[in-house]
Amino acid sequence: MSEEKSFHMTSDEFRRYGHAAVDWIADYHSRIESFPVLSQVKPGEIRAALPKNPPAQGEPFEWLLKDVERLILPGVTHWQSPNFFAYFPCNASGPGILGDLVSSGLGVQGMLWSTSPACTELETHVMDWLVGMLGLPEKFLSSKSGGGVIQDTASSAALCALLAARERATNYSSNKKGCNGRLVAYASTQTHSSLEKAAMIAGIGTENLRLIDVDDNFAMRPDALARQIEADQRAGLTPCFVCATVGTTSSNAMDPIAAIGEVCQRHNLWLHVDAAMSGTAMLCPEFRHLQNGVELADSYNFNPHKWMFTNFDCNCFWVADRKALIQTLSILPEYLRNQATESGAVIDYRDWHIQLGRRFRSLKLWFVIRHYGVEGLRHHVREHVRLAQEFAEWVREDDRFELAALAPLNLVCFRHKGGDAANQDAVNQSIMDRLNRSGDLFLTHTKLKGKLTLRLCVGQTNTQARHVERAWKRIREEAEKAAAAA
Amino acid sequence: MSEEKSFHMTSDEFRRYGHAAVDWIADYHSRIESFPVLSQVKPGEIRAALPKNPPAQGEPFEWLLKDVERLILPGVTHWQSPNFFAYFPCNASGPGILGDLVSSGLGVQGMLWSTSPACTELETHVMDWLVGMLGLPEKFLSSKSGGGVIQDTASSAALCALLAARERATNYSSNKKGCNGRLVAYASTQTHSSLEKAAMIAGIGTENLRLIDVDDNFAMRPDALARQIEADQRAGLTPCFVCATVGTTSSNAMDPIAAIGEVCQRHNLWLHVDAAMSGTAMLCPEFRHLQNGVELADSYNFNPHKWMFTNFDCNCFWVADRKALIQTLSILPEYLRNQATESGAVIDYRDWHIQLGRRFRSLKLWFVIRHYGVEGLRHHVREHVRLAQEFAEWVREDDRFELAALAPLNLVCFRHKGGDAANQDAVNQSIMDRLNRSGDLFLTHTKLKGKLTLRLCVGQTNTQARHVERAWKRIREEAEKAAAAA
Repeated sequence: MSEEKSFHMTSDEFRRYGHAAVDWIADYHSRIESFPVLSQVKPGEIRAALPKNPPAQGEPFEWLLKDVERLILPGVTHWQSPNFFAYFPCNASGPGILGDLVSSGLGVQGMLWSTSPACTELETHVMDWLVGMLGLPEKFLSSKSGGGVIQDTASSAALCALLAARERATNYSSNKKGCNGRLVAYASTQTHSSLEKAAMIAGIGTENLRLIDVDDNFAMRPDALARQIEADQRAGLTPCFVCATVGTTSSNAMDPIAAIGEVCQRHNLWLHVDAAMSGTAMLCPEFRHLQNGVELADSYNFNPHKWMFTNFDCNCFWVADRKALIQTLSILPEYLRNQATESGAVIDYRDWHIQLGRRFRSLKLWFVIRHYGVEGLRHHVREHVRLAQEFAEWVREDDRFELAALAPLNLVCFRHKGGDAANQDAVNQSIMDRLNRSGDLFLTHTKLKGKLTLRLCVGQTNTQARHVERAWKRIREEAEKAAAAA
Repeated sequence: MSEEKSFHMTSDEFRRYGHAAVDWIADYHSRIESFPVLSQVKPGEIRAALPKNPPAQGEPFEWLLKDVERLILPGVTHWQSPNFFAYFPCNASGPGILGDLVSSGLGVQGMLWSTSPACTELETHVMDWLVGMLGLPEKFLSSKSGGGVIQDTASSAALCALLAARERATNYSSNKKGCNGRLVAYASTQTHSSLEKAAMIAGIGTENLRLIDVDDNFAMRPDALARQIEADQRAGLTPCFVCATVGTTSSNAMDPIAAIGEVCQRHNLWLHVDAAMSGTAMLCPEFRHLQNGVELADSYNFNPHKWMFTNFDCNCFWVADRKALIQTLSILPEYLRNQATESGAVIDYRDWHIQLGRRFRSLKLWFVIRHYGVEGLRHHVREHVRLAQEFAEWVREDDRFELAALAPLNLVCFRHKGGDAANQDAVNQSIMDRLNRSGDLFLTHTKLKGKLTLRLCVGQTNTQARHVERAWKRIREEAEKAAAAA
């Protein structure tokens, strides 16, 4: 039978252009240090260079790669640069990228077990592997009462945990009847903003999200938590959920999980542990004391897409009681019914998250774990922590600077002491702006105890000693100029 | 300076293995018709072949590709097969896959404009292009009061629309105070299950989601909608949101948008139009009458990852009033503050969806649109519709079969008439099971007016006339056997 008219890319073209795209990425990473880390374009500059209308006829693939180079790159902030020390990183690696490519090529939907059994089973398997790799409690295993699922982000994981807590606390009636304005959730003043967003989305309301005080090291105070829960109970409200953080975004503070978990058990609250960034450190047994008490958690999550070399998006989320999660998020229209689901012998991950459709995300995680091996992953995590600790030591030894928080792992919060207290914030803002405008590195800020604080996070895949050394040199150079100008 | 010990994939290795992965994908697509479309494995079979523990030391990349072939492929349901006629498709293409690969290689986070301006601006630009390409109202343009954003799935888009409606109806107080159990949302009995899930998640409650009756063609009855809204208002409730569908999942029914929109305007309800599947057809002016009245929508979404050759995930979501959406989903912690955001001159897409982190998804959409051109996309959509209409004609002409619904585009709902009414469902179930077990093609079912109905959807990238012809031949073969056995 003759082939029909087609505009699809042929197999030969796919090979040729695919090789070209792979080579372009390899080249990009080889010259990544030549670009300013933070994009220097002005608002609207990228759009202004794009044609007003889409093309009526197709264009050669070569034009696309050229335009990525010419039109897109100037507007890229280079998250994969070894000189990227901002926010938390979003690191990636060769095996992660190629695992994701294979997933795109297979193009399967994993919403149900039956829509691609391997997509579900590899995910369950890798999530079980990670329970052991991170020293998490056995109750999170799929062979016990729990199980793991890959979510897109920690925001979605927190939302799912909050929803399950909401349902459990209302005897599974809030899904039917809606919220009643009487459920209360707890986090700390340092908890990630996604919890506030989750409280908004879930119909709990931010006025019913209590932000518990922190101690001098920005960790949640369990005594303050217990007092607030008891006050809410006396007021006739229904406390249902606590989020404790292993490594807060602002300062990498470690909430005391054991003490918080004990409070949650006493009052029958769902404990969600958010280890989005620092969970990766738990690959190394010597860091696990930072989450002592994790066996009390009802749910836990961390982001391999932050620090475990697995490109975005990849959030790993576990629950101790999968029935609670499934009962919360399950729907079953006729057009999704099938024998495997009815048999009850399989996991349908559709019932473990917000979305229905889902891609084969475990492939990239599997590729990463197998490429590095557990020892390889540990090596690089330890190396990042070592470099950050070295940087903290330099700050400590320089009397123009001070550390602004403990630095338990790979995030260092610090500031220049300024000429005097009045201009300290301005000097630090100026140091950051000068550095980021220079393009040599990129770091971001926070406020701790009311003071502007610089954050340097070592977590980019290719960051080595020389990058951190140069960052410190450049920080001191710009600090001198900023202080002189103040 | 000497290089440090590293387990990372080198640049040369990335090229070599990247080429191998691209070639593997090309090979996979070349031999995709040799696999059973629906995976034939039993529950647990894939996991049983995987090692119990993760490797301590890294493994060669060659092993990974071999294991994809050996361990994963048997558990894959081949969504990219031209013989995949199940559910709605999730089609992909060379340019889409390679655009996504470049996105993985860049590895940027687009949560804020400043975290990669090109990621935001290309997305806004392409979403504006699509407004014109689909004949959508100008109010959805970023240059007007609205704007578009790429979401992961239609489930998330519906949730965001419902949240914005919830906030607007409560004068932006539900985020703060939580839901009060008095908000009401409306869909039809045929609306996608994600709306039920959204009502659960958003704290509205499924008891407050009214499922409005449909007419003989499974389209929502605007008169019934109006009556229900008025009854709810009289009961002191707060109607806030209607979801109308352009192409329902079950039968591809078209809700009358103009009439529904008029009801929404009269009662000041948010109208969300879900065109997840059929939105792609609007590339062709001749199909746009199916969504007459779309100018009354407050929000609209469709999935290029279903039918527009853009690999998952890629949902396009527009709002007419971006301020309502942003006010609903905005949070601004100190550590995300920056000059561009404060200036108000830029879009921060973090405030347009549930998640914080986001990947550079517009690249694959840009690649697809430029590779095919508007005319190329139209050609393939028209071809799919033509093939489905031809199939519907064959069903109509065969007196053992009947059409079970209108077939306005590329989904045909049909059934074998069975020996008698009593065994009709069993015969159709048996036809489907036999076909799916044969591996020759994959189709799924629904229930319409209480009867089991087979669905055949033509939307896979490489489906040609010969595949649909063979599907019809195989359906008739298995129908004869099933009817004989009944």
